[in-house]
Amino acid sequence: MVILTLNCGSSSAKYQVYDWDKKEVLGVGLVERIGQAMSNMENKSKGKEEFEGERACPTHKEAIQWVMETLVSEEFGCIKDLKDVKAVGHRVLHGGETFKKSVIIDNEVLKKFKELYHLGPLHMPPNVMGIEAAQAVLPDVPHCAVMDTAWHQTMPAKSYMYALPYEWYEKYDVRRYGFHGSSYVYTSKRAAVLLGKEAKDTNVVICHIGNGSSICAVKDGCCYDTSMGMTPLEGLIMGTRCGDIDPAIIPYIMEETGLSPKEIDSVMNKKSGILGITEKFIDRRDVHKGYMEGDERSKLALEMEAYRVKKYIGSYMAAIGRTDAIVFTAGVGEMNPVYRNAMLEGLESMGIKLDPEKNGASITRNAETCISADDSPIKVFVIPTDEELVMTEDTYALVEGTYDVHTNFTYTFQHRDYVNKARAEALPGNIAKNPALAKVVVKL
Amino acid sequence: MVILTLNCGSSSAKYQVYDWDKKEVLGVGLVERIGQAMSNMENKSKGKEEFEGERACPTHKEAIQWVMETLVSEEFGCIKDLKDVKAVGHRVLHGGETFKKSVIIDNEVLKKFKELYHLGPLHMPPNVMGIEAAQAVLPDVPHCAVMDTAWHQTMPAKSYMYALPYEWYEKYDVRRYGFHGSSYVYTSKRAAVLLGKEAKDTNVVICHIGNGSSICAVKDGCCYDTSMGMTPLEGLIMGTRCGDIDPAIIPYIMEETGLSPKEIDSVMNKKSGILGITEKFIDRRDVHKGYMEGDERSKLALEMEAYRVKKYIGSYMAAIGRTDAIVFTAGVGEMNPVYRNAMLEGLESMGIKLDPEKNGASITRNAETCISADDSPIKVFVIPTDEELVMTEDTYALVEGTYDVHTNFTYTFQHRDYVNKARAEALPGNIAKNPALAKVVVKL
Repeated sequence: MVILTLNCGSSSAKYQVYDWDKKEVLGVGLVERIGQAMSNMENKSKGKEEFEGERACPTHKEAIQWVMETLVSEEFGCIKDLKDVKAVGHRVLHGGETFKKSVIIDNEVLKKFKELYHLGPLHMPPNVMGIEAAQAVLPDVPHCAVMDTAWHQTMPAKSYMYALPYEWYEKYDVRRYGFHGSSYVYTSKRAAVLLGKEAKDTNVVICHIGNGSSICAVKDGCCYDTSMGMTPLEGLIMGTRCGDIDPAIIPYIMEETGLSPKEIDSVMNKKSGILGITEKFIDRRDVHKGYMEGDERSKLALEMEAYRVKKYIGSYMAAIGRTDAIVFTAGVGEMNPVYRNAMLEGLESMGIKLDPEKNGASITRNAETCISADDSPIKVFVIPTDEELVMTEDTYALVEGTYDVHTNFTYTFQHRDYVNKARAEALPGNIAKNPALAKVVVKL
Repeated sequence: MVILTLNCGSSSAKYQVYDWDKKEVLGVGLVERIGQAMSNMENKSKGKEEFEGERACPTHKEAIQWVMETLVSEEFGCIKDLKDVKAVGHRVLHGGETFKKSVIIDNEVLKKFKELYHLGPLHMPPNVMGIEAAQAVLPDVPHCAVMDTAWHQTMPAKSYMYALPYEWYEKYDVRRYGFHGSSYVYTSKRAAVLLGKEAKDTNVVICHIGNGSSICAVKDGCCYDTSMGMTPLEGLIMGTRCGDIDPAIIPYIMEETGLSPKEIDSVMNKKSGILGITEKFIDRRDVHKGYMEGDERSKLALEMEAYRVKKYIGSYMAAIGRTDAIVFTAGVGEMNPVYRNAMLEGLESMGIKLDPEKNGASITRNAETCISADDSPIKVFVIPTDEELVMTEDTYALVEGTYDVHTNFTYTFQHRDYVNKARAEALPGNIAKNPALAKVVVKL
């Protein structure tokens, strides 16, 4: 069975075509700058030339149309006919409190998503537009929704409630929801396998550190707490997001500068984080390079980001009581030993001891590694995440009627012998790998 | 030498008269509801009747005037003549980045305080008014300022910087300052004594849990991080303050409700926290009672507050690397074993093991206790705080010319044989003591 997964961001659409029977990625790609004068596409199909192109895509509808054309293009496509696609899995940002697991999309589900626009004003409309555009092109196959928030619905109230007027929860749905759910499904289950445990017996803290970053406390195999909140702004310091701040700063700055609510929201989301500190960088590779070259702001940004992660690790270890492993995943988590070292340095008394060589050597998005010292009571794993595989498997199982919430369902990647072979080939060629970094484990 | 200390809040003025030579509190009291139609005073002088009275005090000036009259009143006062007062110590909320230790107030200092009004709009004007009113009545003695923020000036940049646009730091002084400084000076030095260590070799996490609450990571005897931020709003869940939230909630709620910056600031400071959750209680004794009686919101409020503290403890243990002790202080921290138990429960794997009996029995503002189990690697202390004594001693030493920043100064209460005898007598009689609570160590 061939399954297409679609991930429509505010101005982008990523996709992957997966052959479930062969456990093989047939093609991947993305359209960027949707809504701007000219959008561009990158597409890579197994055994074919990479394709890069430009076209005007005023909305996600035109982008999806373009994706479908490319998928069946003789020169660059990975399938012969759109009819080969038997199901589509859509990533959806927000499931509110309604969706605790993935679902087949019907009119009722789509209506509910439209009622959740206020919780994800930038993401929910393109998510829904992507679904409707794909349904128009592929009307006869099941479309499924995989929500970023669903994994987090096991949080206890003490984790998800804010100490704000209770009626804001009742009237405006103000609570912690959490994001990056599919990534945590994948990495928490893989961590259990690496620990030789059942998922339900596993306590881990997972650091998903990329451009957007969050961290998740997993207790007994379920989400117990997470750093992103009602929106993806809360928690860690990210590329352009501030994460945690004194909330009183917001009205103070609004009074001082005259910024409107929308404008200050935009500054906190798009002009803060690493960009706010350095005033020049977003990408951690640039920050790392700046740090190596003695740039003061890069040093501050690296130290602040790592220190925030370290504090969250301690905080979530306290929350879950017993910790089996710390897991790093996503771009920075998988690829940058200097950041990982800075995040874990000085935690020996809490049972975490990194092996500097193993840490320095683990720079790959294609292998799972244990980077803690042999005598470290708590293991440290690097587990390249695979959100697309979770979306694909949820979709497959929904279509087959075998799907259930993750606590009642066993993913193929929970098998002891599972190796994520597909990923290496599927990854776009431009993923930066800098072996020189492996040599450097800097003391901060 | 008789020293008067003054603590002018937004609508109150607390005071204490201390005989330095006898190490004895001569009198304490407070004026409340300053600025309302009628203000009221409570005053207690050693060996005399308590005084309670009402009078209109439109500003702190009239309140200070009333305090001075009462101090020398034959029936209720504790001194014969205002000339007996040889120095005045003033609590000042905010010292910005200028003041790293207590100072004698001159025109330059007062001018600087007036430049810091934007950082403490509710507290700084009454602080300054209190100073000027006291100077008018006692023009010939030194007046000293003890800033809440001074203790925290040792924080590294990674602790005090926010990941916001850097120019907000440069132009608007947006950074973490921290508060409750005098309390941390006292409790951190006392913890070192109880540990049998030099202050400079001491790593502790101090939980100051009262109506306003904060927590402080102390590394090598100095502040390394703290939960309150640019203002006292950030961090823990407090009586009416929300503490940490997703900052994106603020613009979202402003858009939904039309609240102005000032209004939403007021909601977060005055209608959130325990009051926001329970919609009825601020005082933790009420919450505790509600919890015991099965009230759901009280249970949620207690769990949320305790869980937030627990997470901060873990976070700060990670920050300082090695932890010698956890310290509880202030109203809830000193008086409520159920809260302390909920805050530390499940931390055994991190080296913290409470002794339930010792914890249950420690309900006093007048004795230092160790409430951890004998085999707990990390000690847990209850240390009743004494901010007034720090203010008094700073003032005394400033006048004598022996004062310096706390790392170069040894307080009298750092002596091994020191016992805070004065405190028991000085405390107002209405401090609630509920011995019944000692019997209850509830599992949450």
